[in-house]
Amino acid sequence: MSTQNLLLVLDLVGILAFAVDGALTAIRTARVDIVGVLSLGLVTAIGGGVIRDVLLGVTPATFQDWRYITTALVGGTLAFFLSRQLTHLSRPILLFDAAGLSLFAVIGATKAQEMGFGPLQAVLLGAITGVGGGTVRDVLLNRVPTVLSANSHLYAIPAMLGAAFVVLANVAGFGTGLVAVVGALVCFTVRILALRYRWNAPLPPGAPPL
Amino acid sequence: MSTQNLLLVLDLVGILAFAVDGALTAIRTARVDIVGVLSLGLVTAIGGGVIRDVLLGVTPATFQDWRYITTALVGGTLAFFLSRQLTHLSRPILLFDAAGLSLFAVIGATKAQEMGFGPLQAVLLGAITGVGGGTVRDVLLNRVPTVLSANSHLYAIPAMLGAAFVVLANVAGFGTGLVAVVGALVCFTVRILALRYRWNAPLPPGAPPL
Amino acid sequence: MSTQNLLLVLDLVGILAFAVDGALTAIRTARVDIVGVLSLGLVTAIGGGVIRDVLLGVTPATFQDWRYITTALVGGTLAFFLSRQLTHLSRPILLFDAAGLSLFAVIGATKAQEMGFGPLQAVLLGAITGVGGGTVRDVLLNRVPTVLSANSHLYAIPAMLGAAFVVLANVAGFGTGLVAVVGALVCFTVRILALRYRWNAPLPPGAPPL
Repeated sequence: MSTQNLLLVLDLVGILAFAVDGALTAIRTARVDIVGVLSLGLVTAIGGGVIRDVLLGVTPATFQDWRYITTALVGGTLAFFLSRQLTHLSRPILLFDAAGLSLFAVIGATKAQEMGFGPLQAVLLGAITGVGGGTVRDVLLNRVPTVLSANSHLYAIPAMLGAAFVVLANVAGFGTGLVAVVGALVCFTVRILALRYRWNAPLPPGAPPL
Repeated sequence: MSTQNLLLVLDLVGILAFAVDGALTAIRTARVDIVGVLSLGLVTAIGGGVIRDVLLGVTPATFQDWRYITTALVGGTLAFFLSRQLTHLSRPILLFDAAGLSLFAVIGATKAQEMGFGPLQAVLLGAITGVGGGTVRDVLLNRVPTVLSANSHLYAIPAMLGAAFVVLANVAGFGTGLVAVVGALVCFTVRILALRYRWNAPLPPGAPPL
Repeated sequence: MSTQNLLLVLDLVGILAFAVDGALTAIRTARVDIVGVLSLGLVTAIGGGVIRDVLLGVTPATFQDWRYITTALVGGTLAFFLSRQLTHLSRPILLFDAAGLSLFAVIGATKAQEMGFGPLQAVLLGAITGVGGGTVRDVLLNRVPTVLSANSHLYAIPAMLGAAFVVLANVAGFGTGLVAVVGALVCFTVRILALRYRWNAPLPPGAPPL
């Protein structure tokens, strides 16, 4: 499989994971009908990529290729019909979310770097691609976004680590295919460990402990 | 009247309707001064078109032609001075909102299709154009957007029906002028019937009834 | 110093002021860790410029030059470590905020006018640049944005006055450098006077007094 195809497959897997995540979060958090479920699945799935492309100054890729939207709608529909089985379990939501976060962080960083943006911006744009869709979902659901919450057990940090891994590997001359897979595993592993062992980032000095 | 002129007139009528709708919603929902009223009228009126143009990858049309902003400010100013008469009536808000939704859904779908986007994307972009401004307004007012609410009596569905009508008619070779008017009427009629007879979209299986 | 350099310096000072403002507002309002503090500082600092550039149809400048993001992160880091001293004082936040508002309003209006947008759009785009970052910050923190609040003691109005000053001065043939500085001082002065003397914009007729 060529690198471009591998990146497309990873992108679509990330979209599917985030669509399920967004749809289940919507069902769990608010009183939404099928339109709300599919909309929030779609927004979670393509929001990060749209924000990334707008910040990169290019036409959002997710609207130019029908496979993106279709994948997101399939994920949302699956979540709609399986919601009774899935929504009472918080673990599947967290796993789908960690998968989407990891894949989007490395794809965002890779795309930014390919377009000539510097390393700092590429890491930041990777992280924004990872957290963007979920942040828009939380804003629409009237919740403070996960990325800003002090007891979210690291969310942007794993995304930045995964993005930094691919940025450094690309600077060092490695190709983008395998590097993206390893970078996503770095992000995913750190995120899951942080959830498992309840790691949190430092609070401002003087803030009362959790 | 040429098709381009007809579409411009429909666009400006939609902007006026959404500006009045957004301004009245602001006065009714929150404690806003004249700046808040005009801002929320403006955001409701041009938000959908700006989001559409960003997703299409073009410079937002609403900032390139002074008639868009001026029309939105006129609508907001009217609503400001007539608010005492209008805000206690929920029906005018719903009618203005349905008119804006209908006009923007067909204009958004037409523009997406003219730019070469596929039918699925054109329908979705039409719906996003229709619901976008009101969604931004609701986010700014700290409310869960109408489009996501389970008892909103269909909101995105009429927009998608109107958009699908113009997309199919254009695929079948009809011109865009009359088709846009009929498509808007399809959306408007379905929306008003849904409000009148309290139609709702299906809830997820297992969700408690309304 | 050339005009372009002067505008860049003013832009970076505005970014620093808004980053401190956004970070302190985050610490004061919500329970955020260092990621949340830096994110909200960054969003407040570059949000207005990104929205402006998206509305102007150009690639956001803030991601093309590493100095913007770095300045915003420095401001956020400063606020993080000095938060114990600063957050209980509301005055520093308001001063930093007024400085960012003033600088961004004149820079936004100048940039819009340089790109050929009309005077009405240039004033509006200046105001949007000024209030945009803080509005995104407030949406993420789940608050009604300052610009929409009826007792915010004028927020968009000083921004529009500062923007209108530079737009008129540019139309009258004055260069952009000194004009930008004076326009920012106009905005800053009106904002501070409005806070000091508790000026507010008119409410809709029939609204109960504050």
